[in-house]
Amino acid sequence: MQTLLLDSSDVDEHAALADVIDAVEQAFGAFERGDTQMPAKSYIDLPQYNGDFRSMPAYLATDEWDAAGLKWVNVHPDNPAEYDLPTVLGTMIYSDPETAFPLAIMDGTMLTMKRTGAAAAVATDYLAVEDATTLGIVGAGVQSYTQLEAISEVRPIEEVVVSDLDEDRVERFVEAFGDAFDVRAGSISEAGHCDVLSTVTPVEDPIVGLEDVGEHTHVNAIGADAEGKHELADELLQAARIVIDDHEQCTHSGEINVPYHEGVLTDDDIHGEIGELVVGAKDGRTDETGVTVFDSTGLAIQDVAAAHVVYENAHADGAGYDFGLIDTER
Amino acid sequence: MQTLLLDSSDVDEHAALADVIDAVEQAFGAFERGDTQMPAKSYIDLPQYNGDFRSMPAYLATDEWDAAGLKWVNVHPDNPAEYDLPTVLGTMIYSDPETAFPLAIMDGTMLTMKRTGAAAAVATDYLAVEDATTLGIVGAGVQSYTQLEAISEVRPIEEVVVSDLDEDRVERFVEAFGDAFDVRAGSISEAGHCDVLSTVTPVEDPIVGLEDVGEHTHVNAIGADAEGKHELADELLQAARIVIDDHEQCTHSGEINVPYHEGVLTDDDIHGEIGELVVGAKDGRTDETGVTVFDSTGLAIQDVAAAHVVYENAHADGAGYDFGLIDTER
Repeated sequence: MQTLLLDSSDVDEHAALADVIDAVEQAFGAFERGDTQMPAKSYIDLPQYNGDFRSMPAYLATDEWDAAGLKWVNVHPDNPAEYDLPTVLGTMIYSDPETAFPLAIMDGTMLTMKRTGAAAAVATDYLAVEDATTLGIVGAGVQSYTQLEAISEVRPIEEVVVSDLDEDRVERFVEAFGDAFDVRAGSISEAGHCDVLSTVTPVEDPIVGLEDVGEHTHVNAIGADAEGKHELADELLQAARIVIDDHEQCTHSGEINVPYHEGVLTDDDIHGEIGELVVGAKDGRTDETGVTVFDSTGLAIQDVAAAHVVYENAHADGAGYDFGLIDTER
Repeated sequence: MQTLLLDSSDVDEHAALADVIDAVEQAFGAFERGDTQMPAKSYIDLPQYNGDFRSMPAYLATDEWDAAGLKWVNVHPDNPAEYDLPTVLGTMIYSDPETAFPLAIMDGTMLTMKRTGAAAAVATDYLAVEDATTLGIVGAGVQSYTQLEAISEVRPIEEVVVSDLDEDRVERFVEAFGDAFDVRAGSISEAGHCDVLSTVTPVEDPIVGLEDVGEHTHVNAIGADAEGKHELADELLQAARIVIDDHEQCTHSGEINVPYHEGVLTDDDIHGEIGELVVGAKDGRTDETGVTVFDSTGLAIQDVAAAHVVYENAHADGAGYDFGLIDTER
């Protein structure tokens, strides 16, 4: 038997966002119904290299399919400056749950961007106003591109305001999307007054205040992925309907981790998990006005769901490289 | 940058056992000195498929090199009968600790056999009599081959007695090694009266009694890898100097797990961890007579150490297939 190898381009081409959004939504639902297994991320901390590794195994079952796999990923912030490599490098092994055969090994870096965009799109679909046509982006790094690509699958986005201190990054973003959308650079407050806002920065001091968002803005808070990081001011979170992806991860290292540990936010301030909205146990947006926030930390089941889509689509197209990794005759 | 893909044959050819034994010995020493990181194995249990997945990440540093990686492995006992696939299938990602770049992805099934044989060889080197020339094998399955290959690197093995209820397996083993060693089929007791014995069976009721071993036999107990499994009778363990690989894993799922939980064995009956022998904190064999037992559960650092050898040797030889898994230009 052969294992299908899929590089960054293969993942990019076969991670059709409509399919990934659907699969990630199903994964959130499965999580809420208890049809997933997702052991806590295992960390290996390497302070001598200012980096860490994370192991993210998961299994999920929906009514139509099930899937298993593992993403091995890292955060090495010195990589770009010292080694001309990305900060985050991921490798995904996608396995058949029935036999454990590794069906595919794929670039987990591109996969992470796709599934993170897809999660924001699922939340946006439940929490943004129906006729959202404007999207703000704060932080125009590598993870910001799939925010626009995915969110525009669920809302009729026309105008995009992108805010970043780095003018080169803004320029690249405008160049990438200028043909398909009305994209312009703007302040954080201009981005925040869009119908939907995605914040994708690694800051530890909040940069978006309550006064920076509109009266019905839905915010996807993507950037916080470690203790001490948060992008949104406490007043904004306190005024918002807050939806999280996973209680343990969000209170530990998500957007809400700092105010939660300071007692500024409590469990009573959390409206629910995104999976509860998917299965109908909790409401999404109920009023035309009111700010909503989705705290996205990224779940291992999102990676497995996205890998399922990539593998099925690539396999059907005959894409990738077949490799006899394991000699099954022995 | 390219990731080197190494299939079963590549791993087999480049896992020079002398090198792997040395690397695994260094890994055991690093473990004892606190120079390793090895989060507990994460399990995904799939009773609907009678199988499970295990995620085994690790990092280790020796004086000369350090290495990081992850093995994604499973146990699906129905695989051989139902799918014509091995019970255990492993995939190893070997990463540069400094940048986290995946240097190699290799067959973890063959790697597991090599590192398991190497662990037995390290223990045999510290615990068997110096002039051991006879080796007994109980259980002639896939893991038994590297027992002989590795142990014969550390002792001048001439005669081998192999015991298995399945005559085909015995015949295959004799065929594989008949040219290099004086190999014959025998009873458990005949195998056990060799200078060194390796038990490699999945039994839950012990099959080797105290009367089945010689007065100075060193036993490598390899088979037990789950709660409830053990191969050696309590009286044999009680009479032996017991060395383990890791206290947590051995008391949970190693050879000693059943008698330990029944109170038949206590911590006072455990001589030490193999790493303590490597660093000189505890003695190995001190007398010409006396039975010794090594309880091998298999540590993630063994996989990383073995992968280090395979990658370095394969890379030097220009072996394997270079694949641009991750687009590092993005």
